[in-house]
Amino acid sequence: MIKAGIIGATGYAGGELVRILACRRDVEIVWYGSRSYIDQRYADIYRNMFRIVDAKCLDDNIEELAGQADVIFTATPQGFCASVMNEEILSKTKVIDLSADFRIKDVGTYEKWYGIKHGSPQFIEEAVYGLCEVNREKIKNARLTANPGCYTTCSILTAYPLAKEGIIDMRSLIIDAKSGASGAGRGAKTPNLFCEINENMKAYGVAAHRHTPEIEEQLGYASGEETVINFTPHLVPMNRGILVTEYAALKKKVTSEEIKGIYDKYYKEETFIRVMEEGVYPETKWVEGSNYVDIGFKIDTRTNRIIMMGAIDNLVKGAAGQAVQNMNLMFGLAEDEGLKLIPVFP
Amino acid sequence: MIKAGIIGATGYAGGELVRILACRRDVEIVWYGSRSYIDQRYADIYRNMFRIVDAKCLDDNIEELAGQADVIFTATPQGFCASVMNEEILSKTKVIDLSADFRIKDVGTYEKWYGIKHGSPQFIEEAVYGLCEVNREKIKNARLTANPGCYTTCSILTAYPLAKEGIIDMRSLIIDAKSGASGAGRGAKTPNLFCEINENMKAYGVAAHRHTPEIEEQLGYASGEETVINFTPHLVPMNRGILVTEYAALKKKVTSEEIKGIYDKYYKEETFIRVMEEGVYPETKWVEGSNYVDIGFKIDTRTNRIIMMGAIDNLVKGAAGQAVQNMNLMFGLAEDEGLKLIPVFP
Amino acid sequence: MIKAGIIGATGYAGGELVRILACRRDVEIVWYGSRSYIDQRYADIYRNMFRIVDAKCLDDNIEELAGQADVIFTATPQGFCASVMNEEILSKTKVIDLSADFRIKDVGTYEKWYGIKHGSPQFIEEAVYGLCEVNREKIKNARLTANPGCYTTCSILTAYPLAKEGIIDMRSLIIDAKSGASGAGRGAKTPNLFCEINENMKAYGVAAHRHTPEIEEQLGYASGEETVINFTPHLVPMNRGILVTEYAALKKKVTSEEIKGIYDKYYKEETFIRVMEEGVYPETKWVEGSNYVDIGFKIDTRTNRIIMMGAIDNLVKGAAGQAVQNMNLMFGLAEDEGLKLIPVFP
Amino acid sequence: MIKAGIIGATGYAGGELVRILACRRDVEIVWYGSRSYIDQRYADIYRNMFRIVDAKCLDDNIEELAGQADVIFTATPQGFCASVMNEEILSKTKVIDLSADFRIKDVGTYEKWYGIKHGSPQFIEEAVYGLCEVNREKIKNARLTANPGCYTTCSILTAYPLAKEGIIDMRSLIIDAKSGASGAGRGAKTPNLFCEINENMKAYGVAAHRHTPEIEEQLGYASGEETVINFTPHLVPMNRGILVTEYAALKKKVTSEEIKGIYDKYYKEETFIRVMEEGVYPETKWVEGSNYVDIGFKIDTRTNRIIMMGAIDNLVKGAAGQAVQNMNLMFGLAEDEGLKLIPVFP
Repeated sequence: MIKAGIIGATGYAGGELVRILACRRDVEIVWYGSRSYIDQRYADIYRNMFRIVDAKCLDDNIEELAGQADVIFTATPQGFCASVMNEEILSKTKVIDLSADFRIKDVGTYEKWYGIKHGSPQFIEEAVYGLCEVNREKIKNARLTANPGCYTTCSILTAYPLAKEGIIDMRSLIIDAKSGASGAGRGAKTPNLFCEINENMKAYGVAAHRHTPEIEEQLGYASGEETVINFTPHLVPMNRGILVTEYAALKKKVTSEEIKGIYDKYYKEETFIRVMEEGVYPETKWVEGSNYVDIGFKIDTRTNRIIMMGAIDNLVKGAAGQAVQNMNLMFGLAEDEGLKLIPVFP
Repeated sequence: MIKAGIIGATGYAGGELVRILACRRDVEIVWYGSRSYIDQRYADIYRNMFRIVDAKCLDDNIEELAGQADVIFTATPQGFCASVMNEEILSKTKVIDLSADFRIKDVGTYEKWYGIKHGSPQFIEEAVYGLCEVNREKIKNARLTANPGCYTTCSILTAYPLAKEGIIDMRSLIIDAKSGASGAGRGAKTPNLFCEINENMKAYGVAAHRHTPEIEEQLGYASGEETVINFTPHLVPMNRGILVTEYAALKKKVTSEEIKGIYDKYYKEETFIRVMEEGVYPETKWVEGSNYVDIGFKIDTRTNRIIMMGAIDNLVKGAAGQAVQNMNLMFGLAEDEGLKLIPVFP
Repeated sequence: MIKAGIIGATGYAGGELVRILACRRDVEIVWYGSRSYIDQRYADIYRNMFRIVDAKCLDDNIEELAGQADVIFTATPQGFCASVMNEEILSKTKVIDLSADFRIKDVGTYEKWYGIKHGSPQFIEEAVYGLCEVNREKIKNARLTANPGCYTTCSILTAYPLAKEGIIDMRSLIIDAKSGASGAGRGAKTPNLFCEINENMKAYGVAAHRHTPEIEEQLGYASGEETVINFTPHLVPMNRGILVTEYAALKKKVTSEEIKGIYDKYYKEETFIRVMEEGVYPETKWVEGSNYVDIGFKIDTRTNRIIMMGAIDNLVKGAAGQAVQNMNLMFGLAEDEGLKLIPVFP
Repeated sequence: MIKAGIIGATGYAGGELVRILACRRDVEIVWYGSRSYIDQRYADIYRNMFRIVDAKCLDDNIEELAGQADVIFTATPQGFCASVMNEEILSKTKVIDLSADFRIKDVGTYEKWYGIKHGSPQFIEEAVYGLCEVNREKIKNARLTANPGCYTTCSILTAYPLAKEGIIDMRSLIIDAKSGASGAGRGAKTPNLFCEINENMKAYGVAAHRHTPEIEEQLGYASGEETVINFTPHLVPMNRGILVTEYAALKKKVTSEEIKGIYDKYYKEETFIRVMEEGVYPETKWVEGSNYVDIGFKIDTRTNRIIMMGAIDNLVKGAAGQAVQNMNLMFGLAEDEGLKLIPVFP
């Protein structure tokens, strides 16, 4: 039995972790951390969990939790995990951080884009970037895993094989991303109100979104080239789902079959990546509630560009599902344990 | 291994059956019947099933299917199941009919409300009304189970204990029901278009909806009284979920504790019925994707009425989930096998 | 030129007032009161007003405003208007209060349902209940008009003719109401977040909603009978729109034609009330953005009840539109001046 | 009094034309053409028009209509207008075609992208492309105006000043467009059903959408350069609204102030174009129901690209509103007559 603790259990990503882990017979959640709801019953906050979870919310004392849990998930605001991390915690337990604190290797880049000082830079090198399909072997031995961001998971995996194989010009890459509202979190802010988001669409964080350097770093590793991209997120009136549309110049003439072949080379054996047949483009609804990444593409000979499209459920593959996938790897379990979630339609 | 066939596999209820059954290791779907999509790959119709279901759609030849399947689910328009049913089929296989054909015991009532002639009235008496929490023992021995309607499941279970115990006046009962759009099915009709339903709300079938006699019959059995109700369905812009608000005159003074006690008497041991604590009212989102029925109530001493509220996912407990619950009972399995679905939020 | 001031101009009802009044050539808004946004440009809060409104937000100093404005609209929380009202204000300007402060004639009832002490009960008698179609003549001479609530406007007008003519039993009346989310206001609260409301439905304020006594009082006047009702509001995932479904026992046998005749007797000449033809039931989308009330009905001979349905846009006829209709009456203008708004579809 | 006829009056664009024209005192709609609903009352199809429009639907006999109307709007499928156009019609009446038939000057390009033969190529040269802000003077004298597409209107106007001034590299332009569902029309097709679009997002027509050559042609005229672009439309779960996000390489170093200056040079005096202040990005909700185009931009010095964003209501500025703007120009009226529509929020 794996004992798991969650800090930030009442955010949307935390709630999704609970949903996924509550199905497991080999995992017990021993700590529902939520500073805002201490001593309140978890099922009073998320009533979908009525009669499923009996526990009350606890504080975010990670030191104490480290003594009780085999793995800690931190689904907390940027800066929290770095500010509390220390060797003692890591010597007692594994940590999967769903925040951005340990995703970026260059601490200067982190501090510039996030506007905060990193609280424990000494652990950045050790931390493994938890994009399972790319870093699988490293994750297996990690004590501290940096769970990738939602936009980044989708953006990177959609372009990864073509970047890796040198097919696309890494300075031409433009990522136009669209997300449902759960990505904005559960904070009670006016822009997140139903009437402000419903029947509305907008870009935000233009040329300034914090997921940009994370994507650039990872695709830079893949391609071996300096990667500077445009990344533009948009807010769309739906609960779940991220769709990315990526544009890149082709370095040479390729056919659809060759592109499909490259995707298959990397993803054919992947449980959670489904490369669509030609002419089929991913829709967020086809992955909703599941850990899948659906990928499609189209070559445009008129412009010599390729358009790549990827879709995920931002709370599953973009957060809690991938965190559990990382946990499975870190504990030597089947990678899809507890993640055989079939997409819900409609 | 139970071999299951589905006729009407590409409707929304049929699709949900596939989603639920595809998780099972003890069930194999041997027939994806869909007259509209014969020979097309099922996963081309429902791309959420890409790489999960490989089969192609077949026709609706129930005779042939009966020879191959241990159980047949008919998720078909009214009249189909009755028109094809015969002793030979029932001698070879069990049938769970998700249409209304065998729900109503009085064939005249059926023919009046549905406006069609019943094709095999000789099986009506044998058919068991598959409301598991009420007819559990009968279902276990059924060959032919009539899976209840979505509105009716929610309407009946919400009032059942109070009807049974003679607490409410059965001629005062008014059921105001609200449903998401998946209840209207997947037919390509103008009123079902996104732009017609989105940002809109309406009543329909006022004093004429076909689920009315089904509710009256079952609550009549429960109460032992003639039950004549008002039932008004409304269409609400969301995919899934039914909420019923039921009003009834109290026959005598009762306290909230007494009412809670009555609900608990009937439902405390029920896996799929969650009676809310006082002051908590069900929300459809708290049951979405699951087989739960959530029930709450409020006594209004000013009017001497009780307001009962119930919520279900219309495609799960209101259709496919309950059908599988019936299958489990009919095959002597644990009633919640394959149905431990945790509600998805948000 | 009528000089108008709005206190509470950045709430949804206040914003709608601005939208409607900004079209007028005979009205000038001289005061955009918004305590939360003082000194900020109004168009920075509501960017739909960019290049339409240039003014900045001011505080809520109604005394000063009274010296500048011919009419003041208070779109403020309960208690505010009563707490600041005085004879001097009313001697200088007309007031249309969109809050509940002056709607209920019995101050005890007000204080019980709203849980606050009334700040200026001496003006309650003078205040005119601003339901234009019912109190038109009184409104013309009012200094202080209590603009009706959104649910109440729709609930009362839907039943009014039948109550007035003694057709329905006023103790049997049950009103099941459904509203879009803008009725909950623009406060940044977790339950109003997009992800909490979207794809969800719930009842709230069951047997306790504050619009109940307002409806009872007005329908009591109409019927001359003590009126005690059940009123249950529901929240539905859409921005605008209220639909009420009302159930009442018929006191005598009547035909559809007779009922239609009664509605026509009261509403035929009304600009803003559209009584539907038989068999047609109102939909909120058909009135969206307009000042219309659409009404339909169905007699159910099985239960001897009539089901009445009414639809409005809660921000127009349920708030700002009706407030402007009241202003028109109070200033001797054409009642529909600036209100010839055609419903927007889709 | 201008007598107007509409062919295709029951589509969403046709319905919006009726909504806008019904407010006019100087325009009378003399013909509600709708092949699907001949002899049915228009208000029975669009009940928002109950008691506003009394007429019945007529067929699409444009010859007869030409004798009765001063202007004909064709809101019809591609090919219809070209197939019926002749000199006699144009000698009797003005025509504003909302379809694509006369938008593209090169008939070969039209026939290739639309896959149909053009029925009256002899009128292509005469036809004026009705993008008012660009072709105002030509439109004033037009007999036949080709009303621009919804995506194209937004896409072109967003980039036009920078293309015209040679600021951006016209071969680097990538347009990622997102639209609400009303753009898909009112046809009863499965992919347009509520449950298929709601809570879903997808790209479609990738590298193949018919609006591509229209954008290329117009921006080619503006820039004087060959313009070959990527245009990717996406479907988003909302009724109305188009948002385009456009990426282009800057030809030289420019400041935000310079870019703003260029936009102002072209659009400062335009009634319907609102260029946002720096750091403000358009949202579709801020233009909903109005004829506005809202435009914002951001220079990204890291990639030396500019990101331009534009928002319109696809049924107003993207269809019916612009058609009326064209009519106003063609009849020598104030360009904003009947179009002072304030955006509706929320």
